[in-house]
Amino acid sequence: MLWKFSHRAQSLKSSTIREILKVTEQANVISFAGGLPSPDAFPLTEIRAAANAVLESNDIYGALQYGPSEGYKPLRLWIANYLSQRDNVTVSVDEILIVTGSQQALDLIGKTLLDSNDKVLVETPTFIGALQSFNQYNPQYVAVASDEDGLIPDSIDDEVARTAKFLYSIPNFQNPTGRRLSLSRRQALAAKAKQNNLVLIEDDPYGDLDYQGQRLPALYTLAPENTVYLGSFSKILAPGLRLGYIVANRQFISKLLPLKQASDLHTPSLTQYIAYQIVSKNNFLSDHIPKIRQIYGSRCQFMLQSLAKYMPQEVSWNQPEGGMFIWVELPEYINATELLKEAISQKVAFAPGETFYVHSEKNNCLRLAFVTVPEEKIDTGIKILADIIKHHIH
Amino acid sequence: MLWKFSHRAQSLKSSTIREILKVTEQANVISFAGGLPSPDAFPLTEIRAAANAVLESNDIYGALQYGPSEGYKPLRLWIANYLSQRDNVTVSVDEILIVTGSQQALDLIGKTLLDSNDKVLVETPTFIGALQSFNQYNPQYVAVASDEDGLIPDSIDDEVARTAKFLYSIPNFQNPTGRRLSLSRRQALAAKAKQNNLVLIEDDPYGDLDYQGQRLPALYTLAPENTVYLGSFSKILAPGLRLGYIVANRQFISKLLPLKQASDLHTPSLTQYIAYQIVSKNNFLSDHIPKIRQIYGSRCQFMLQSLAKYMPQEVSWNQPEGGMFIWVELPEYINATELLKEAISQKVAFAPGETFYVHSEKNNCLRLAFVTVPEEKIDTGIKILADIIKHHIH
Repeated sequence: MLWKFSHRAQSLKSSTIREILKVTEQANVISFAGGLPSPDAFPLTEIRAAANAVLESNDIYGALQYGPSEGYKPLRLWIANYLSQRDNVTVSVDEILIVTGSQQALDLIGKTLLDSNDKVLVETPTFIGALQSFNQYNPQYVAVASDEDGLIPDSIDDEVARTAKFLYSIPNFQNPTGRRLSLSRRQALAAKAKQNNLVLIEDDPYGDLDYQGQRLPALYTLAPENTVYLGSFSKILAPGLRLGYIVANRQFISKLLPLKQASDLHTPSLTQYIAYQIVSKNNFLSDHIPKIRQIYGSRCQFMLQSLAKYMPQEVSWNQPEGGMFIWVELPEYINATELLKEAISQKVAFAPGETFYVHSEKNNCLRLAFVTVPEEKIDTGIKILADIIKHHIH
Repeated sequence: MLWKFSHRAQSLKSSTIREILKVTEQANVISFAGGLPSPDAFPLTEIRAAANAVLESNDIYGALQYGPSEGYKPLRLWIANYLSQRDNVTVSVDEILIVTGSQQALDLIGKTLLDSNDKVLVETPTFIGALQSFNQYNPQYVAVASDEDGLIPDSIDDEVARTAKFLYSIPNFQNPTGRRLSLSRRQALAAKAKQNNLVLIEDDPYGDLDYQGQRLPALYTLAPENTVYLGSFSKILAPGLRLGYIVANRQFISKLLPLKQASDLHTPSLTQYIAYQIVSKNNFLSDHIPKIRQIYGSRCQFMLQSLAKYMPQEVSWNQPEGGMFIWVELPEYINATELLKEAISQKVAFAPGETFYVHSEKNNCLRLAFVTVPEEKIDTGIKILADIIKHHIH
């Protein structure tokens, strides 16, 4: 059989880094490579109770039947209300579409906005999962310069902003860097978007995970007309539910809806009913989110201490204020992908930086995920990594 | 804000029929329009027990965490074993990819195989949901002539077969016609595919629902190299789980996988764990499927009797041997979409035929779904429909 694949499928490259990281699935590897949330933060009791409540009531028929492509209406109403309160804005239920995880939101954004060779602005570095979704629609990436405070709006050329299909950003505790976009940068980006009719895709899976609970204004509140906001239950409930949502104005939602329908008809009813049952309980999230912040914040502190204890002075890293990742910068002459091979031979893994750049210009950085590794293993793993790096310092 | 949508999104037309059918969601409408499976056939007890078993055991961590894009391995192994036994073939776990309902399989097939203007062969009439998925990739449809025995392989031009990207078919109890492709046509289609390097997409959501339990050989057993088989749990467990699977050779699966990953990362872990827990119980499906056949078969018989009792002799319909649909043919001068408006004003609904044709050549047919309507309402609804039709007979 000679298969006749689409150009899209033919152009897919298998990831060498994914191959390297496959070995890290062994139990005896200390892995800082993955992006999994901590199972210690899953609300097991509430999930069990919610599943019971759905399956033992008349809700069971709705939870098992086909449902609307927009999503389960009570869940959409709850989200509208949650966002309206949290972000002090007015979000209506018609502006919300439930998706099968934020990854599906990224695919639907690509479907709705991208033709071949369209320009897309991305942070430097940026989230690899977003690139994988957008790549299906063959865009041209324009990398936006970034520093400790996130992307730099002034570095965006106005002509590029006017002609790009959208700018993709994770303003809060970005994947891979853990950086948060500063307030003044948010304001500058919102102004730039308004001036240039630029669509902002605001991906916010980690937004609730600021360790101090001090949320900065979301882009969709600063430039509501221009922004498509992506929310997720993966980091505040559990990723295995695959539940996320898109917030956008009605005109955009009306274009998304038939594409969502063509993509998977609708997100599973059962997981939507269970999630609604959990989050609609009095104060559930206002009790639960501080627990996640506590777990994640203390592991972050612990890893920062280990880094300070073991790393040579030529290595630097940031101090995240939330989320799941620390971004480490090595001297320019050290290649992080080569380092990974050595680290794996000593049973430690991380995500090498080059994966996260659209133009692969830089490979002396690495991403460390700290939330799923117990403290004693964080200490051991960072020491091993530091010893390997020291061997390469000259 | 001036949105810059993709050509894909711009070319979407809103469906007038969907608008007409929106009113049928009212409780007092007798609707033969939808394609919902009957909630009477949901295995409620087993679903409750399975959810409990998953959530009360250590499985809960897997069910709530990110999982592999291929799907939950025990479920894939179970499917490989089920198909191997049912269809007397050898299916390996590497040939199976779990998807978020068969609708996602159709989207992934489009992504993997279709470039703009590629030829796709479809039955006449064909499943509208498949067209919605494929339309996203802008194919050219070639309608294959069909009759009571399903599509007619001899009518397919060899040159068209050689140059088409694939042929899409529902061989068992097709949506919308309820027709089953005969054995000799299956053999002829398999031969045609092999001769012409033609990919067959075999969509089989209703395959287990033959009322007599006499399965005909699947295309993927007759032309294994050429066929991509789509299975679904929607009609044998419950559609709200959104669980389906793709069976294809490893080369094809390896092209699908990164596109699946880019589309929603993976199908929800929770629903996969629950489904596995149900189907892996001793003989569950061999006990449960006959119950569904019994419910669906007796409702089909009942509707056939009502049609015979009330319809004028100018109207004809088929005698389905399985599935959820009867296909009714009116005299050519009666337009089914116009008829629908009248029917709705009298609180009865059906799906008008024109929706299911790629070239809209025919609109004197209609699809009747019988499985969700109680018997007394089937009788009332068919009588009302027959009276309306009689008014148009001349």
